[in-house]
Amino acid sequence: MEIAILLFDGITPLDAVGPFEVLGRLPGAEVKFVAKKPGEYRTTGGRLGLIADYALDRVPAPEILVVPGGPGADAAAADAEITGWVAAVHQNSRWTTSVCTGALILGGAGILKGVQATTHWRAMDDLAAFGAIPVRQRVVKRGRVITAAGVSSGIDMALGLAADVAGEEVAKAIQLVLEYAPEPPFDAGRFADAPAARIEMVRSGLNRP
Amino acid sequence: MEIAILLFDGITPLDAVGPFEVLGRLPGAEVKFVAKKPGEYRTTGGRLGLIADYALDRVPAPEILVVPGGPGADAAAADAEITGWVAAVHQNSRWTTSVCTGALILGGAGILKGVQATTHWRAMDDLAAFGAIPVRQRVVKRGRVITAAGVSSGIDMALGLAADVAGEEVAKAIQLVLEYAPEPPFDAGRFADAPAARIEMVRSGLNRP
Repeated sequence: MEIAILLFDGITPLDAVGPFEVLGRLPGAEVKFVAKKPGEYRTTGGRLGLIADYALDRVPAPEILVVPGGPGADAAAADAEITGWVAAVHQNSRWTTSVCTGALILGGAGILKGVQATTHWRAMDDLAAFGAIPVRQRVVKRGRVITAAGVSSGIDMALGLAADVAGEEVAKAIQLVLEYAPEPPFDAGRFADAPAARIEMVRSGLNRP
Repeated sequence: MEIAILLFDGITPLDAVGPFEVLGRLPGAEVKFVAKKPGEYRTTGGRLGLIADYALDRVPAPEILVVPGGPGADAAAADAEITGWVAAVHQNSRWTTSVCTGALILGGAGILKGVQATTHWRAMDDLAAFGAIPVRQRVVKRGRVITAAGVSSGIDMALGLAADVAGEEVAKAIQLVLEYAPEPPFDAGRFADAPAARIEMVRSGLNRP
């Protein structure tokens, strides 16, 4: 089963690596990291480089597409070469998925018009601008389009998808390998509960690695 | 604040990327991915390559050390060049941390003798062989040595560490950026609760991407 994960400069790597750790363990999974050109793609701060082995046109028909987000997603969503590939892949994919602002790239590909979808809480308005119907939910599944909220939600999305693809027992075994029994030290991950000062700190004050 | 994250072939990328997403957002964080030689390091199945920009000797005194695990951790734990560097860094680090079987590399560096520590559930006996006292807990903090359990636990570990380094408000803002309000679709991440058939599936049946 061919699974394509898109890379681009300015990616948030957990958006891609969370689903990779889950979906890559499915029986028969063949993950391919794809990008406009094979080579190295960097996070916004430049600290981490990830390698894409495949150019877009080398992977025309994956069964599962995972589109991660990050600060570079806006540019990717406006890049006709990328969105053209995403739109073409979606024609035949079994599942088309996004994590975080990867939803904007699905939007740029015209996939979300009139479709309920989610993204990072900072990007809900941008998502609506592509004609999507934003939903504040961690994972939104509409037909074969699955969108996940910010960054870490890709793990939850991928586990649900793993169950759809290979059954609950396989998904649970993958969850066990990853020891995914979260114990966040704080209860601070939900936008709906966040005080204004914390939102402001996110908007202006944090490093972008 | 210099933060070194070790890379090696056979890494489990989420072990490294989870903490990177958290610690890299700390004010003043300067993350450096380090390895025996600068260049590309691959997961066991070869599907994903991560780039180390720095050779070990270029980063002799990071304040925070993060040692991820993966199928390649056994070899790294037996590699004197790697363990010598880890041991030397630990002399002066503010925090020395591991995720998953990264604890075995700390063990190989002689850091865990007589110290309570944790690792992936599959590697508890290997951890004991290094003289550590294995503890089945998601995050174990003993002095300035912090060890985390399997793979996804590195996110929890790093958020707790972020609070120690920069205060709870910063840690909570980082949690909000990552939208880390987990909703695992199953309750299957804990070894203690896992049925024998699922453990057997992990041991023999899953892909290694």
